[in-house]
Amino acid sequence: MDEGQARRRTRGGGGAARRAERTAKRIEAAPRITRAIPDYELLSEAALQIIERNADTVLEEIGVTFSDNPAALARWRDAGADVRGERVHIPRGLARKLCATAPARFTQHARNPANSVEIGGRDLVLAPVYGPPFVRDAEGGRRYATIGDFRNFVRLGQMSPWLHHSGGTVCEPTDVPVNKRHLDMLLAHMTLSDKPFMGSVTEPSRAADSVEMAKILFGADFVDQNTVMVSLININSPLTFDATMMGALEVYAAANQACIVSPFIVGGAMAPVSVMGTLTQVLAETLAGVAYSQLVRPGAPVIMGAFVTSIDMNSGAPTFGTPEASQITYGVGQLARRLGLPYRSAGGFTGSKLPDAQAGYESANSLNMGLMAGVNFMLHACGWLEGGLVASFEKFVMDADQLGALHKMAAGVAMDEDAQAMDAIREVGPGGHYLGCGHTQTHFKSAFWRSQVLDYKPFETWEEEGARDTQALAGARVARLLADYEAPALDPAIRAALEAYVAEKKAAMPDAFT
Amino acid sequence: MDEGQARRRTRGGGGAARRAERTAKRIEAAPRITRAIPDYELLSEAALQIIERNADTVLEEIGVTFSDNPAALARWRDAGADVRGERVHIPRGLARKLCATAPARFTQHARNPANSVEIGGRDLVLAPVYGPPFVRDAEGGRRYATIGDFRNFVRLGQMSPWLHHSGGTVCEPTDVPVNKRHLDMLLAHMTLSDKPFMGSVTEPSRAADSVEMAKILFGADFVDQNTVMVSLININSPLTFDATMMGALEVYAAANQACIVSPFIVGGAMAPVSVMGTLTQVLAETLAGVAYSQLVRPGAPVIMGAFVTSIDMNSGAPTFGTPEASQITYGVGQLARRLGLPYRSAGGFTGSKLPDAQAGYESANSLNMGLMAGVNFMLHACGWLEGGLVASFEKFVMDADQLGALHKMAAGVAMDEDAQAMDAIREVGPGGHYLGCGHTQTHFKSAFWRSQVLDYKPFETWEEEGARDTQALAGARVARLLADYEAPALDPAIRAALEAYVAEKKAAMPDAFT
Repeated sequence: MDEGQARRRTRGGGGAARRAERTAKRIEAAPRITRAIPDYELLSEAALQIIERNADTVLEEIGVTFSDNPAALARWRDAGADVRGERVHIPRGLARKLCATAPARFTQHARNPANSVEIGGRDLVLAPVYGPPFVRDAEGGRRYATIGDFRNFVRLGQMSPWLHHSGGTVCEPTDVPVNKRHLDMLLAHMTLSDKPFMGSVTEPSRAADSVEMAKILFGADFVDQNTVMVSLININSPLTFDATMMGALEVYAAANQACIVSPFIVGGAMAPVSVMGTLTQVLAETLAGVAYSQLVRPGAPVIMGAFVTSIDMNSGAPTFGTPEASQITYGVGQLARRLGLPYRSAGGFTGSKLPDAQAGYESANSLNMGLMAGVNFMLHACGWLEGGLVASFEKFVMDADQLGALHKMAAGVAMDEDAQAMDAIREVGPGGHYLGCGHTQTHFKSAFWRSQVLDYKPFETWEEEGARDTQALAGARVARLLADYEAPALDPAIRAALEAYVAEKKAAMPDAFT
Repeated sequence: MDEGQARRRTRGGGGAARRAERTAKRIEAAPRITRAIPDYELLSEAALQIIERNADTVLEEIGVTFSDNPAALARWRDAGADVRGERVHIPRGLARKLCATAPARFTQHARNPANSVEIGGRDLVLAPVYGPPFVRDAEGGRRYATIGDFRNFVRLGQMSPWLHHSGGTVCEPTDVPVNKRHLDMLLAHMTLSDKPFMGSVTEPSRAADSVEMAKILFGADFVDQNTVMVSLININSPLTFDATMMGALEVYAAANQACIVSPFIVGGAMAPVSVMGTLTQVLAETLAGVAYSQLVRPGAPVIMGAFVTSIDMNSGAPTFGTPEASQITYGVGQLARRLGLPYRSAGGFTGSKLPDAQAGYESANSLNMGLMAGVNFMLHACGWLEGGLVASFEKFVMDADQLGALHKMAAGVAMDEDAQAMDAIREVGPGGHYLGCGHTQTHFKSAFWRSQVLDYKPFETWEEEGARDTQALAGARVARLLADYEAPALDPAIRAALEAYVAEKKAAMPDAFT
């Protein structure tokens, strides 16, 4: 029985699902990105060796803390680390050796196989913003996010022609009790989208719920044997692994589900102010975290992550799209490739409060850096505003549109005879015009990437239509996409089972809001 | 006598200039950018060889047109080209051979020697927008540019801590007769700024005026022996060199002044829709143009240019910040390095009508591409709006601010022991905080690039201060810079001589407005 057979069998249902498939509006899967362009190698071999040597020194001499987690300490002791209290001193080379069992690439399956993604190698997977407690749009301004907002972001993600992934906590549904949010969020990803998604990490029990719900959606056998979730495990920088995050990692790794092991670093606060110092700490932390995932289950899929930004020393606020963040992101990419691990970083980052020019500059800086740095999994690729405090509807579609440019850039340059266009140059000759020539006519529809949001109209037309700025144009697109949205087909029996699981779990817990 | 002595002697004056210097506000020169980071090598060796071979085929088989220019045809014939009518067929390899006498790098002198720039090699020189007939600011909207606007842009350029160059036609002073504009523009650059500037190219006689005024400013001997102007010679793509532009080039090359020889290409209209085809045409055109400059005067300083954008096939409008433009810009950079010529391209390009998010995305895409493509001279680095039809005051300072990030990025990553920060990592340890540690305290002022325009404030503060977007913040900076501006010191005798030259020239011509 191959994977496809296993999934068809475990999906069950059949008739209803097929009927639903026939009636649902067809959304094309976002094309896979397999980079045909080189990575940008910012740092020299000498610099990389220094970082690697220093990271090993950090792990051995300073060590890392696994707090409130005796089982983790025992695992490390068994593996040969020198454990003193909660501090784990990892002998030079050990962490790297343990990382060797992590796969260089893996498939994250989506319930619609056309949307499954490859994570690692030359691939780039684009996923939306993660974590904001607030949302913003031009009409409603800035406000606490609700589950209704959450569902709309999932719908927008499903409709994007460039986004590969439905994400995780696209915004925090603050109107749902904290201890029940993950259920509603998972249900939304599983029912409103057929792209891959992320699991909950805010408690080990919620990670377990994520696995259970995935088993309902994909079938238990399929989940046992395949990766269907990628979840975000943040390291508590500097050098600390807390029990909550590690508990979630343990659940996922044991279930063969993927984790991103990622420091969350505001440079100057959680890491040194220097690029080399931050790179050293990031490498030490991710080596320890990835190694730990392999202690839980050798071969568990894992992604080496780096969320790095710098601090504004005047206001203490994190800043985004800055040169230092780019330098670190390029450097971690080089280190990840040397380790043979998939790499998560970058995104459409900005500190701006509005989807304005600042948001455009900073996000474009970050998105370009992510493409060139060889990132394999780009969380926060669209929708991020105000340093991650806000998920913006307009910015979601603005960024998602720019992701199309990354797709095109990543495809590289065709160099076949037709692309060389010598006959066109001959045909047109000095002083001529290419608009009418055969080569142009053949290729004009696909030759140039074209934005679906930005304004390309003549000034007079643009003015007559209301002189709209990008936010207004994006707002119109948000409304259009939500109006056009149709849920992807889902076997009604599976939907009912998911809803029953959520209802049962909710009923068994009192509401908690902190 | 060395260069400095020559200039001190020819400047004359003395007492008055020294007094003026003492009272003038000191503006720091923009720091030189010498890239300590690698270029991005997008195309393979095989692709580059194909382009080079095809470009030679274009030059030999199709040829280039030098229109209304018998002297140019004679020069080409003497050099061994096959001239048929106005079409010059350049035997394979000849153009490349002629380019060999062009210097790989040269100095463009400013009247303030601290502002002189090196053009070529690993250097990146940043210059403002060139050519818009309109200006825009939030208060006055979009309107025809005046000489008053022009002077204000020169003042803003002088005040920028990151911009190296005062530019040329920063906007078209449409209130001055066409045949006299160049005089007022040159006078503004020479008196309101002490950064390097560009000469006029709209008629050979105006190029001659530019050289004459430069001789008044720098001294005739100095100008004979040094490059004090860089001027923009556009090729009339495809493959056509018109008499006006070539006439200006002839004046400048003969006077040992530098020209940028640059196709102006909207892909799909003036070049094939494919990247490889456009690269082939760009290389053929610049090879012919640079070679011609060397026929006029072997050794004349010249910059290989490429202004490339693509066309929106729906509206026919040029588009900016697109992946295809980036691919071409990277490719031309590789070709220029193989030729050993300084390279001009990129800029803060956008098609947006407003300094909004679209402007931010597209400009950041273009600026990053310029840095990574190895550009040596970046015209249009700040102020460009609406496809180059508009010079925007707010966008001028927004872009100029982002140029600071390019400076920092270009500086690369320090890897000395202090930058490695191992002592800081030891001092802080797991769970600690870097804000208070000695390493942070020592470096926090210079560690991170900090915008002087963008908003980093807490949400509440930002809201209390009026919830300003980037355009509003930039508008405030424009007003502040213009209020703080003081003209750099200039020998009153030189100023008087420049004014007399302009007055005399103006009096000798009737006004012309077309």
